[in-house]
Amino acid sequence: MNNFIPTAADRFTFGLWTVGNIGRDPFGEPTRQPLSAPYIVHKLAELGASGINLHDNDLVPIDATAAERDSIVAALKAALRETGLKVPMATTNLFSDPAFKDGAFTSADRRVRAYALQKTMRSMDLGAELGAQTYVFWGGREGTEVDAGGKLMDALGWFRESLNFLADYSESQGYGYRFALEPKPNEPRADIFLPTVGSALGFIPTLDRPDLFGVNPEFAHETMAGLSFPHAIAQALDAGKLFHIDLNDQKMGRFDQDLRFGAENLKGAFFTVMLLEEGGYTGPLHFDAHALRTEDEAGVWAFARGCMRTYLILKDKVAQFRADAEITAALEAYRVEDGELATLSRFSPENAEALKNFSFDRVALGQRGPGLEALDQMTTELLMGVRG
Amino acid sequence: MNNFIPTAADRFTFGLWTVGNIGRDPFGEPTRQPLSAPYIVHKLAELGASGINLHDNDLVPIDATAAERDSIVAALKAALRETGLKVPMATTNLFSDPAFKDGAFTSADRRVRAYALQKTMRSMDLGAELGAQTYVFWGGREGTEVDAGGKLMDALGWFRESLNFLADYSESQGYGYRFALEPKPNEPRADIFLPTVGSALGFIPTLDRPDLFGVNPEFAHETMAGLSFPHAIAQALDAGKLFHIDLNDQKMGRFDQDLRFGAENLKGAFFTVMLLEEGGYTGPLHFDAHALRTEDEAGVWAFARGCMRTYLILKDKVAQFRADAEITAALEAYRVEDGELATLSRFSPENAEALKNFSFDRVALGQRGPGLEALDQMTTELLMGVRG
Amino acid sequence: MNNFIPTAADRFTFGLWTVGNIGRDPFGEPTRQPLSAPYIVHKLAELGASGINLHDNDLVPIDATAAERDSIVAALKAALRETGLKVPMATTNLFSDPAFKDGAFTSADRRVRAYALQKTMRSMDLGAELGAQTYVFWGGREGTEVDAGGKLMDALGWFRESLNFLADYSESQGYGYRFALEPKPNEPRADIFLPTVGSALGFIPTLDRPDLFGVNPEFAHETMAGLSFPHAIAQALDAGKLFHIDLNDQKMGRFDQDLRFGAENLKGAFFTVMLLEEGGYTGPLHFDAHALRTEDEAGVWAFARGCMRTYLILKDKVAQFRADAEITAALEAYRVEDGELATLSRFSPENAEALKNFSFDRVALGQRGPGLEALDQMTTELLMGVRG
Amino acid sequence: MNNFIPTAADRFTFGLWTVGNIGRDPFGEPTRQPLSAPYIVHKLAELGASGINLHDNDLVPIDATAAERDSIVAALKAALRETGLKVPMATTNLFSDPAFKDGAFTSADRRVRAYALQKTMRSMDLGAELGAQTYVFWGGREGTEVDAGGKLMDALGWFRESLNFLADYSESQGYGYRFALEPKPNEPRADIFLPTVGSALGFIPTLDRPDLFGVNPEFAHETMAGLSFPHAIAQALDAGKLFHIDLNDQKMGRFDQDLRFGAENLKGAFFTVMLLEEGGYTGPLHFDAHALRTEDEAGVWAFARGCMRTYLILKDKVAQFRADAEITAALEAYRVEDGELATLSRFSPENAEALKNFSFDRVALGQRGPGLEALDQMTTELLMGVRG
Repeated sequence: MNNFIPTAADRFTFGLWTVGNIGRDPFGEPTRQPLSAPYIVHKLAELGASGINLHDNDLVPIDATAAERDSIVAALKAALRETGLKVPMATTNLFSDPAFKDGAFTSADRRVRAYALQKTMRSMDLGAELGAQTYVFWGGREGTEVDAGGKLMDALGWFRESLNFLADYSESQGYGYRFALEPKPNEPRADIFLPTVGSALGFIPTLDRPDLFGVNPEFAHETMAGLSFPHAIAQALDAGKLFHIDLNDQKMGRFDQDLRFGAENLKGAFFTVMLLEEGGYTGPLHFDAHALRTEDEAGVWAFARGCMRTYLILKDKVAQFRADAEITAALEAYRVEDGELATLSRFSPENAEALKNFSFDRVALGQRGPGLEALDQMTTELLMGVRG
Repeated sequence: MNNFIPTAADRFTFGLWTVGNIGRDPFGEPTRQPLSAPYIVHKLAELGASGINLHDNDLVPIDATAAERDSIVAALKAALRETGLKVPMATTNLFSDPAFKDGAFTSADRRVRAYALQKTMRSMDLGAELGAQTYVFWGGREGTEVDAGGKLMDALGWFRESLNFLADYSESQGYGYRFALEPKPNEPRADIFLPTVGSALGFIPTLDRPDLFGVNPEFAHETMAGLSFPHAIAQALDAGKLFHIDLNDQKMGRFDQDLRFGAENLKGAFFTVMLLEEGGYTGPLHFDAHALRTEDEAGVWAFARGCMRTYLILKDKVAQFRADAEITAALEAYRVEDGELATLSRFSPENAEALKNFSFDRVALGQRGPGLEALDQMTTELLMGVRG
Repeated sequence: MNNFIPTAADRFTFGLWTVGNIGRDPFGEPTRQPLSAPYIVHKLAELGASGINLHDNDLVPIDATAAERDSIVAALKAALRETGLKVPMATTNLFSDPAFKDGAFTSADRRVRAYALQKTMRSMDLGAELGAQTYVFWGGREGTEVDAGGKLMDALGWFRESLNFLADYSESQGYGYRFALEPKPNEPRADIFLPTVGSALGFIPTLDRPDLFGVNPEFAHETMAGLSFPHAIAQALDAGKLFHIDLNDQKMGRFDQDLRFGAENLKGAFFTVMLLEEGGYTGPLHFDAHALRTEDEAGVWAFARGCMRTYLILKDKVAQFRADAEITAALEAYRVEDGELATLSRFSPENAEALKNFSFDRVALGQRGPGLEALDQMTTELLMGVRG
Repeated sequence: MNNFIPTAADRFTFGLWTVGNIGRDPFGEPTRQPLSAPYIVHKLAELGASGINLHDNDLVPIDATAAERDSIVAALKAALRETGLKVPMATTNLFSDPAFKDGAFTSADRRVRAYALQKTMRSMDLGAELGAQTYVFWGGREGTEVDAGGKLMDALGWFRESLNFLADYSESQGYGYRFALEPKPNEPRADIFLPTVGSALGFIPTLDRPDLFGVNPEFAHETMAGLSFPHAIAQALDAGKLFHIDLNDQKMGRFDQDLRFGAENLKGAFFTVMLLEEGGYTGPLHFDAHALRTEDEAGVWAFARGCMRTYLILKDKVAQFRADAEITAALEAYRVEDGELATLSRFSPENAEALKNFSFDRVALGQRGPGLEALDQMTTELLMGVRG
C-alpha cells in the first residue's frame, strides 16, 4: 500500500514566501505570525521536502546591514546543513519596495533600472553562496496601467538590456546560473510584460545568450489567462526550455489565488504530473502556493503536506494510466499511421507534387470516431479511483 | 475638416469571409444571403478599401471541379482588374470540413495531416495566382478537449513538420510568401495550440526557416485571453515579426465576437493604431470582423464603413496626441535619464562592480510621482474630443 | 461492488437536442447525422435514463403542417409508451429562426414579441400533451450587443409582460406548469438579460405570479461568468426556487462548451451532487450537454453513459464523505456555537443593547484555525479514491 | 463652453478609503502616506465634491478608546461644517481584522457573527450621528474557498438573520436607514456569497423587511464577472432597488482594479451615465475607486478630478445623443409598434386564442434590418467628439 509519504528523492521544494506567507491580502491584515527561515527549513525537512527557494528579502530585510545579513545567512546555512535541504533556486524581490512601483527593469526612470540591476547582482551573489543553480525572473511590476506613457516598445528593450547584463554578470562571476523567466498576465499590474509562457519563449531568442534562458511556468499564472497549463508545459518542453516549475492551483479569470496543488483542477494537475514525469523534466518540483488566509500554522503544514501528497497520488495514477490495458488500446486506436503518406510528407518537389495529386477520401476521414469521450471518461474514473 | 473617407492609400483590407458572413451562429440559422466575391470586391472598392483576403473555400467550394474553380477565379480576377483591389493575403480553410474535426496539421491521423498539406499547397497556388504575398496559418482546429489523447508534445512536432514542408514548398515554387501564424486561445477547440501571440513567437525559432515566419495578431483573439492587444503588437514589432494584423473588437473572457473595430474598447484601439502608425508596420490593415447577426446587407456596409472610419479618426487622434504640448511635457517628465548610470549599465566586470556599490536613494525613488493618472485623463479627454 | 449502472429511479433525463446534437459549430459543418426522436428515446431507455426534454422544434420542424406535426408527435408517444420514458420538461426554441435575431420577448419589434407568445403557447400545448410539468424559458436571444438601442429597461418590462401572459395562459388552460427561468451571461448575444441565477431570482418577485416561477440553473452558464455553480444552487434552494437543473461542465471565461458532466471540474460536480442529494431537490437530473464534435454516434452514447456514471460515482462519494469519521470530526470542529450569543442575536432592543456592550476577544477570534486546508485535502483524496 | 467643473449640485461623493488609499497591494508596501479625514474633506470640497462616505475604521481605529473616537468624530464634523460636505452613506469594515478571516455574518463561528452584529450596530450609530441615510453592506469576507466546510446554505440563513436583526435595530433606533447590498463575485474570497447585482436582488425578497433593502452596484465588481454594468443597473432600476452606486472602472476577468471612472470602458461608462441621468436615480454619485499605486498625492487629486470630469463630459454627451436628429431617427426606426398585436398581447382567453391563430410573416420579420451597426457607429463617433 502506497502511503504517499514524500522523501527528498521526490525533489519537492517550497519557497520561503510560500509556507512563510502571513495571510495578508488587499482587504485584510496578516492572520499569521512570520516564521524564521531556519524554522521553516526544519519543518519542511520533517515533512519530506528536499529544498527551499527564496527571494533575497525573504531572508534578508532590504535595509539589513552587512553584519545582519551575514548572521542571517549563517543561521540559514546551519539549518540547511542540519537537515540536508538544498537551495536549488533563488530570485530577487523587485516588486515590494515603492521604488519599483512602476517597474524595475522596465521603469521609465533609469535610476530605478540601475538599482534593480544592483539589487539583482547582490541577490545572485547570495543565491550562489547558497548553492542555487537556477535563477528566476518574475517581473511582477514590469507592466503598465497607462499605455499612454508610451513605453511599450522601449520597455522590452530595457528588459532585454538588463537580462543581457545579468547573464554576463553570472558568466563573469562563474556562477553558472540557468535563468528562468516566469510569466504572469496581470496583478499587481494591469498588464504585465511577457504575460504568458509563450511570450517568454518568444522573448528569449532576442537575448544575447538565449541558451542560458528558459522559463518557469506557474500553474496559477497561466490559468489566470484561461490558458491550459499542460499545453504551456508541453510547449516549453518541446522548445527545451522548461528550466523550473511552479506548482499550485487557481480558478480562471480572477485574482492570483496560489491554491494548494490539486485543490481546484485535478485533471489539469494530473496531466501536469504526466508531462513532468514523462517529458524529461528533472529539476525541482516547486510549490509556489500558500495556505488559505483563514488558516493558522497547523493549516500551513496541512497545506504543505497536501501539495506533496496530491503530487504523489497523481504520479501513482499516471502509472495506473499507463498500465491500464483498455486505456492503452484506446490510445493506440486514436492514432492512425500510413507509410506512404509519411514518405510523401517529407518535402521534396517530387513528394509535394505526388501529395498534391494524392486521392483522399475526405468524407471517410470526417466520419472516423476518435473515441475521445470514452477515453476521457476512463481517465475521469481512474482519477476518481473507481477503475479496476 | 477631416471627413475620414478612406482611400486605397489607407491600405484597408477585408476578408471575403468578413463582409460575406451570413450571420449563422451556434444557436441560429443564417440571417443574410451569401454575397458573391466579385460583388464584394466592387462594394469594398466603392467604400475605399484597397484589397481583399481569402481562404481557399471562401472563393472555391471544397468540392468544385477544376473547371468550376477556374471560372470562379476568373470572375474574381476580372473584378480585381475593374476595381484595382489587390489580394495581399491568402489562407487555407482547415476547420470547416469534418475531416479536420480533431485537427489538421495536428490530427492524430496521418492521413488528415497529409490531406491538410495537400489542401494548403493547392491554396497557396491559388493565393500566388492572385498575387498574395502573405500566407496566414490560423490553426482553428489545432487543439484538444481531451488531453488524455496524449498528443500534446507530438502535436507540436507534427505542426512544425507541416510548416517546414510548406515553407519549403513556397520556396521551391518561387512564391516568396511570408508566413504569418495567427494565434487564438480557444474556440472552436477547448484549448488551441499556440494560444497567444507570444506562443507563436516562441514557436517560430523551432522552425527550419524562422526568417520566413512571423505573426498575424488578432485583437479579438488576444483579448479573449484577457491579454492586452497593444502589448502583444509591441512584442511582435520588437521581435521584427509583425507580418500581418487582424483588427476587430471583443470583450474579454468570452466567445469570439469579431466586433466592428473600436466597437468595444476605444482605448485599446487607440493604442493599437498608435503602434501600427509609429512602429514601422507597413502591411495591410486588415479588418477580420463581421456585422452583427441582427443586421441586413445595409448593416454589413455600415459595419465595413465604420471599421475604416474609426481607424482614420483614431489615426487623427494619434496626431493630436503628438501635437499636444501638455501631453508632450507629461511624457517627457515621465522619463528620467542619468548619464553615469547609463554607462554603468553597459556590462563590464568593472561597471558591474561599480554599479553594485553605487549608492541609491531608494526612498526618494519610491516617492517620485510619475503623473500617470493625469496623463491618462488627458488621453481620455483627447479620445472624447474635449481637449483644445 | 457498485457498478454505477443507472436506472429510471435515478431520474436522469436528456434533452433531444443534447444526444441529438449534430456537431456543428461556428467554424465547422455537422460531423454527425441527425437521430430521430423515437430512436433517441429507445437508446436512452437502454442506457437507463428516465426521460427526455425538448424544444418544440427539436421534435416538430418550424414549418411543419398540422398533419406532419401530429404524425411526428404520435411516433414520439409510441416510443415513450414502449420504453416508459417521460417528458418532464418542455421549452420553446426562440433563438434559431432569424425572426428572433434581436430577441423574442424583448425584441424592439412588437410583432416579434407577439409571434414569440404565439410560438410559446403552441409549444406549451405540445408540452402539456406530452405530460410535461415544468416549462423552461431560456432567453438565448434576449439581450443586446448595441446598448445604444436604448431598450435596456423596456426590455425587462416586455419580458415581464410576456411571462405574465404565459403564466395566465397556463393557468387558464389548466396546464399547471411550473416555470423555470434559465440564465446565461452571454453567447449568442453579447450580453443576455437575466445573466445569472441571481438575476433570475431577482426578477421573479416583479412578476404577477411569482409562486409559479423558479430557476433552471445550468452548470456551464454560471461557470462562464466565473461564478460557483454550487453557490448558485444553494441560493436557489434557499429561496425555494430550484425548479429544474441543467448538468454539464465548462471552463470559466469562454464560449459555451456544454461538456460531459464532470469532464472538467470534478470538485464542483461533487458539491453540486451533494447539494442536489441533500438539499431537498426531487426533480429530474437533466444533462444539458453534448458529445464533442470530434465524436461519431458511438461517442455520443459513451458521452451519455459517462454523464450518468459520473453522477452516480459522485453520489456514492457523497455517502462516503458523510460516513467518514475524520471528516465528520473536522466538520464539527469547524462550527462554534454559543448559547448566550445565540440568544442575544435574536433582535429586541434589550438584546441589541446587551450585544452592543458584550465583551469579545477579537484577537482570539482571529487566531482560531478552522482546519479548512486539512478538510479540503481529505475531500480531495476522497474524490481521488485514496481514503480508507 | 462647458468646462466640466463639478459643484456640490452634481452630487459627487468619494469614500474616505478611496482618495485615502495608500497604495498597498498584495505584492507591495504602501507608496503614499495616510491622509487625515479632515484634510480629505477640505481637498474634496475644493475639487467640487458634495460628500464623503466611510467605513467605521476609515475614521476610527478598531482599537480606539471612546475618548479617542469622540475626538476624531468631532474633528470630522468640524471639517464637514466648514466645507458643507455631507456624509450620505456609511458602512462597516467587516473584512480587515483577522477575526473576520472566514466571514463576518456568515462565519461558522457564532461568536464572530455576534461580534459582526455588535460592530455594525456601533458603526450604524456613528453613521447616524454623521447624518448618513444609506447604509451599505459589502460582504467582502462572506464567502468560501473550501465548500467542503458545508455551510453554503446555512451561510445564507445566517446572513439573513443578521440583516433582519440590523434592520430591526435601525428602525428601533429611529435611524431610518435604507440598506444597500453591494455584490462582488470574488476577491478576497474565492467565491463570495451574493456575487452579482442579480443575486442581491434575489436575496432581498427573503428578508423580513424587503422594502428597506436595495442594492449598491459597483462597476468593477460586476465587470469582474464579465457582466454588463449598464444591464445590472437597468435591472436594479426596474426593480426600484437602486439605492446607491459605486462608479469606477475595470477590465473583465481579473483582480479588482478600482480604476478611475471611464479609464477603461468609455462606452460602458456612457451608458451608465445615461441610465443614471434618465432612469430616475437621485442619490449620490459615488466614486469607489483609487489612484494607481504608482502615483503620489498629486496623482490622487488628478484621479479624483478625472472621475468627476469624465462623468460631466459623458453627461454632456448624453444630452448631445438626445439632441442628435439622425440618432433620434435611428432610434425611432428601431422600434416597431402594432396596435392590434398590442391588444392581443394583453391576456384574456380570447386574446390568447386569437393570438395563437394570428398569421405572422416569419420570414419578413427575420429580414428586417434594425440598423444597429449604423447606430452604434454614430454613438462611437459621438463619444469621440467627431459628430456635428
